[in-house]
Amino acid sequence: MSTITPGAARPGGRTAQTRRAVREATLAELAEKGFEGLTVEAVAERSGVHKTTVYRRWGTPAALAADALDLASGEPWPLPDTGGIEGDLRALVGLVVSGFADPGAGPVSRAFVSAAVRSPATAQALHAFFAARHEQSAVIVRRAIARGELPEGTDPAETVRTAVAPIYYRLFITGEPVDAGTAVKAADAALAAARAGVFT
Amino acid sequence: MSTITPGAARPGGRTAQTRRAVREATLAELAEKGFEGLTVEAVAERSGVHKTTVYRRWGTPAALAADALDLASGEPWPLPDTGGIEGDLRALVGLVVSGFADPGAGPVSRAFVSAAVRSPATAQALHAFFAARHEQSAVIVRRAIARGELPEGTDPAETVRTAVAPIYYRLFITGEPVDAGTAVKAADAALAAARAGVFT
Repeated sequence: MSTITPGAARPGGRTAQTRRAVREATLAELAEKGFEGLTVEAVAERSGVHKTTVYRRWGTPAALAADALDLASGEPWPLPDTGGIEGDLRALVGLVVSGFADPGAGPVSRAFVSAAVRSPATAQALHAFFAARHEQSAVIVRRAIARGELPEGTDPAETVRTAVAPIYYRLFITGEPVDAGTAVKAADAALAAARAGVFT
Repeated sequence: MSTITPGAARPGGRTAQTRRAVREATLAELAEKGFEGLTVEAVAERSGVHKTTVYRRWGTPAALAADALDLASGEPWPLPDTGGIEGDLRALVGLVVSGFADPGAGPVSRAFVSAAVRSPATAQALHAFFAARHEQSAVIVRRAIARGELPEGTDPAETVRTAVAPIYYRLFITGEPVDAGTAVKAADAALAAARAGVFT
C-alpha cells in the first residue's frame, strides 16, 4: 500500500539468494528505467545471475516484476501504532504519500502500477500484494474497535481502502498533486465514515 | 468521471465534423482493441477521413486518444438530481460503476486510463477531463449546502473525489470487484465525511 517495495533481505538458501539478487536488480532497473525499459538482459547483468538462469526462471519483464511483487507481499510492513485510530490512520496514509514521493521507492511503485495496467501476470501479483497489505494493516482497525474508538463489526479492509483510495485516485487517475495535507484529509474522511458506521 | 466517453454529437462545421468522425472511430477502435491496438491507419479507415489528413492533424495513437478526451471534456454530463445529497452522491458513484461495467463504454474508459499511464499527452487530456467532471458535478454539493444538508464551505471537488476514489482504486490498483453495493458504500463514506466537516 505504501511503497510497493520490499524491506530488508532475510536469510535463505542459494535459490532464495538468487531470487533476492534478481529481485533487487529488477527494482533498481524499474527505478531507473520504468517498466517500459525493463529487460531480462539488464536484470541478469545487474544481478550477477547468469542470463540463461534468469531467462529460464523468469523469461519476461512482466514475470520479473510479478516475482519482485510476490516477494514484497510476504514481507512485514512497519505499521504505525500511535495509541489512537486518528493518529494510526493518518500515519498509514502518510506512509503511502511519502513512499510515492521517495526518489528511490516512488518510481518503482509507479512502475508496478504501470506494469499491472499492461500485464495480467503483474496485475495478479499487484492484487495479491494489496490483499496482503490490507490484511496486515487490519490490526489498526481491530485495535481501535477493542479501544471502543470504532463501532463493533467495522470492516478493517474497507476502512483502509477508503483511507488510501484518494491518494491513488489523484496519483494515477486525475494526476492531481498529493502532499501531507492530502493524507490527513483522506485519513480523516475514512475515520469519519467508520465512526458513522458506514463500514459495519 | 463516469464513463469517460462522449454524449451525442453536436452540430458544427466541416472541421468539427471531421474531428467527430475521427473521434468516434477512435472510441470504437479503443473499445475493440484497447490502447495497445490503436493505430492511425485503422482510425482513418474506420472514420472515412483521408489517412493523410488524420496523420497530419493527429499523427499518433496518443494524440488521437487525447483529442477524443478533449472533446468529451467539453460535453455536459447527465448529473443526478434526486432532491437529496444521499441520493445524488449514490447515483453519481453508481454512474461511474455502471459506466465501467458497460460493454461499450467500459473498455474505452479503461483504455483511456491505460493510455494515460503510458503517454504524457493522454495523461494531460485525462487530467483535464477529470477536472471538468469535478467542476460539473460540484453543483450536487452546492445544492446540498443550500438545502442545509452539508456544512457551509464544504469543498465540492473534495467530496466528489472521495466518493468516486474507492471505485478507481478497486478497478485500477487492487483489482477488486466493484458493484452497486460498492458504489453505495463509497458514496455514503464521502457523505459521512462531508457531514462531519472533513471537507470544509
